Amino acid sequence: MNTADLGLPVDVPSTALFTDQYELTMLQAALRAGTAERRSVFEVFTRRLPEGRRYGVLAGTGRVLDAVENFRFDPDVLDFLRERDIVGEETLRWLAEYRFRGDIWGYPEGEVYFPGSPVMRVEGSFAECVLLETVILSILNHDSAIAAAASRMSSAAGGRPLIEMGARRTHELAAVAASRAAYIGGFTSTSDLAAGFRYGIPTVGTSAHAFTLLHDRERDAFRAQVESMGRGTTLLVDTYDVAEAVRAAVEVAGPELGAVRIDSGDLLLVAHRVRQQLDELGATGTRIIVTSDLDEYAIASLAAAPVDAYGVGTQLVTGSGHPTCSMVYKLVARAESTDPSAPLVAVAKRSTGGKTSIGGRKWAARRPDERGETEAEVVGTGPVPAGLVDRQLLVELVKGGEVVAREPLDAARDRHIAARAALPLSATQLSRGEPVLPTEYVIDEDD
Amino acid sequence: MNTADLGLPVDVPSTALFTDQYELTMLQAALRAGTAERRSVFEVFTRRLPEGRRYGVLAGTGRVLDAVENFRFDPDVLDFLRERDIVGEETLRWLAEYRFRGDIWGYPEGEVYFPGSPVMRVEGSFAECVLLETVILSILNHDSAIAAAASRMSSAAGGRPLIEMGARRTHELAAVAASRAAYIGGFTSTSDLAAGFRYGIPTVGTSAHAFTLLHDRERDAFRAQVESMGRGTTLLVDTYDVAEAVRAAVEVAGPELGAVRIDSGDLLLVAHRVRQQLDELGATGTRIIVTSDLDEYAIASLAAAPVDAYGVGTQLVTGSGHPTCSMVYKLVARAESTDPSAPLVAVAKRSTGGKTSIGGRKWAARRPDERGETEAEVVGTGPVPAGLVDRQLLVELVKGGEVVAREPLDAARDRHIAARAALPLSATQLSRGEPVLPTEYVIDEDD
Repeated sequence: MNTADLGLPVDVPSTALFTDQYELTMLQAALRAGTAERRSVFEVFTRRLPEGRRYGVLAGTGRVLDAVENFRFDPDVLDFLRERDIVGEETLRWLAEYRFRGDIWGYPEGEVYFPGSPVMRVEGSFAECVLLETVILSILNHDSAIAAAASRMSSAAGGRPLIEMGARRTHELAAVAASRAAYIGGFTSTSDLAAGFRYGIPTVGTSAHAFTLLHDRERDAFRAQVESMGRGTTLLVDTYDVAEAVRAAVEVAGPELGAVRIDSGDLLLVAHRVRQQLDELGATGTRIIVTSDLDEYAIASLAAAPVDAYGVGTQLVTGSGHPTCSMVYKLVARAESTDPSAPLVAVAKRSTGGKTSIGGRKWAARRPDERGETEAEVVGTGPVPAGLVDRQLLVELVKGGEVVAREPLDAARDRHIAARAALPLSATQLSRGEPVLPTEYVIDEDD
Repeated sequence: MNTADLGLPVDVPSTALFTDQYELTMLQAALRAGTAERRSVFEVFTRRLPEGRRYGVLAGTGRVLDAVENFRFDPDVLDFLRERDIVGEETLRWLAEYRFRGDIWGYPEGEVYFPGSPVMRVEGSFAECVLLETVILSILNHDSAIAAAASRMSSAAGGRPLIEMGARRTHELAAVAASRAAYIGGFTSTSDLAAGFRYGIPTVGTSAHAFTLLHDRERDAFRAQVESMGRGTTLLVDTYDVAEAVRAAVEVAGPELGAVRIDSGDLLLVAHRVRQQLDELGATGTRIIVTSDLDEYAIASLAAAPVDAYGVGTQLVTGSGHPTCSMVYKLVARAESTDPSAPLVAVAKRSTGGKTSIGGRKWAARRPDERGETEAEVVGTGPVPAGLVDRQLLVELVKGGEVVAREPLDAARDRHIAARAALPLSATQLSRGEPVLPTEYVIDEDD
């Protein structure tokens, strides 16, 4: 499944510039003030889910690990920072030596999350941790938004396969990450060759309307496609008249025709008509694939229709109305001094205008009720209550700068399916509602 | 301005895999059927603007030109296609030699567009043109969505500077393209260092709440920042109590303090209070920058507030409610045979389910009324009416495979500002409405 060994063509030499300028100016000011080496704890969390959503899906963790490993300041990057006078020579020397040597813990990829869940915790010196803020948030905010939409769509699709085909609707590299996140959220395959190349996701695709229009007659196009791809191919039947196209398709390919694709019109109605026609023509094994502007609601509305697979584009790669998450990366604790034994002090923004958060280094656990069903997301500081020790959610991802938790993409996908299944049943209702688990805080007063 | 010579670290070795698999399977079937070399015309257009929007903004053209130049199938890519059995050896040999050798015309970057505007036209053999569909749409759909949002925001901001700071809210490379599109749409600078590096966009940034929280007292953080960055820096004043912070900021930096930033709360109210306090403290030249969840409506609502600059993140990089455009890439004409002199035949999907389009190779012009004010977007096939010949919108971008229209980013930015200014005044109303220019079609019956 994992073909990453083939090469990393969609990666970039360094991730260090996927960074807001203020991370570097803060670094410089802290270096000069002697505070840069204070041990610090940053946490990634979101204050809320998108309106009406029942759960979030963490995706992008594997990409964060790659980004942290590749976060280094090469000579051309240092030259740029120097030419622009963004930081001074002392800071440039520090950056030239930069490697993250701290620790990262987090929810494993594919896990569900709720408001306040500390989905990632980055610990080290202030200097080494603050630099990672922008790229970590870029990855988690994007990928988790796509995975959440994908998860809702895969619930709605039941066991039917879902094809990701949104590359043309989003940035060409965001598309590759979107395919990856969609796969974690339960999609089956992608149209995007770069996603197949980079992440080993199964790729699919046969033809577009242009192929039919290129030929003098629809039948000529069908014949050309079947000769090239075999009778098991999928023929697109809505360029002209659907009924005529289905008849021509079965004539050309025979009843062994793999599938027909419908990309426009009233899919519910057309799918029923096409199924009946295919059956009458003896093509009882020919599948029907639908692909027109689907979202989770449209997928659900086709549950009783004779549809065998869904292709989803725009609504998937734009997060079905919520193209980003609102994850933030906040300093929650830092040492009183640069003395390695100095105790950590919990810190938090406290102004009156909202955006406050809870200070202190957090643990998280998912608590079951007496019947064993999950009933709450518990987030706390200080000691973990005995009953929750074995139910903690954060795992070690990076230890002293070394990635310790790489895994194949299928592991994240399997984890997501299991995590979603362990939620209360109302999690997969598509209607708007509150988060399916309440978040409870257990704050240690000494912290 | 243009520092592209510094290197291309956010580019990728080849763009050929930013492609839906069906482009390759269509290619193979057409090669075998002998139709692949039919001369073909594909056009990029959108059937509608996002609901309520008055105009679209074309962005990404420059990135498309890069992508077309770098669209080639390297050995590792060919190996991948072979291993996955996506196409056969004959097609792989064809792909190994692939270079686009056709012609591309289009609206110049930064130009406005309307439903039906043929914003890009790709002409050559079916084979060489069909392969470019996915990557061209990825770029134009993403970048134009961001530019449209940026343009509305820059209208709303009047002459006040706009800082793009959305990197953390979108995919890390989409963020770089978003900075570029925002700059075209009228933004002034970006927080994203990669956008500065790759496209020469001015970068800015000073500090976050974490920097204040790192220090024992807010005043210590301010002092550290001023010592590092000088009195002209921007101090963030809403970590604890805003009024206390403003007092401390002016005490530490003196009345020469460059700016204060407010990132939460009721910005209208807080900006007025902070302005009054700064003036009373003698810091009459200290500017106020606001940065909290702004969109074009929030920016407009602050028009009368003493605000000197806006920083915009989430709503910019997500297209302010419309994170993608609905541009499509359609075969509109193709030759009757592979004979180079064979005439072009207009083609179009004609099924009843919607998504129909107008066949034929198009021209476009923007028609003024008798007072010289722009009154319609005219799109046609066949001969261009004499009065519109000098008002045509498409320009040559690629000729026989060679890019002929590279330009600095500022040219696109200046063009956008001029194009928007030439529209009827209602173009810049933020309220929902119809496209500010109607699209009129002049279809040649012989075509």
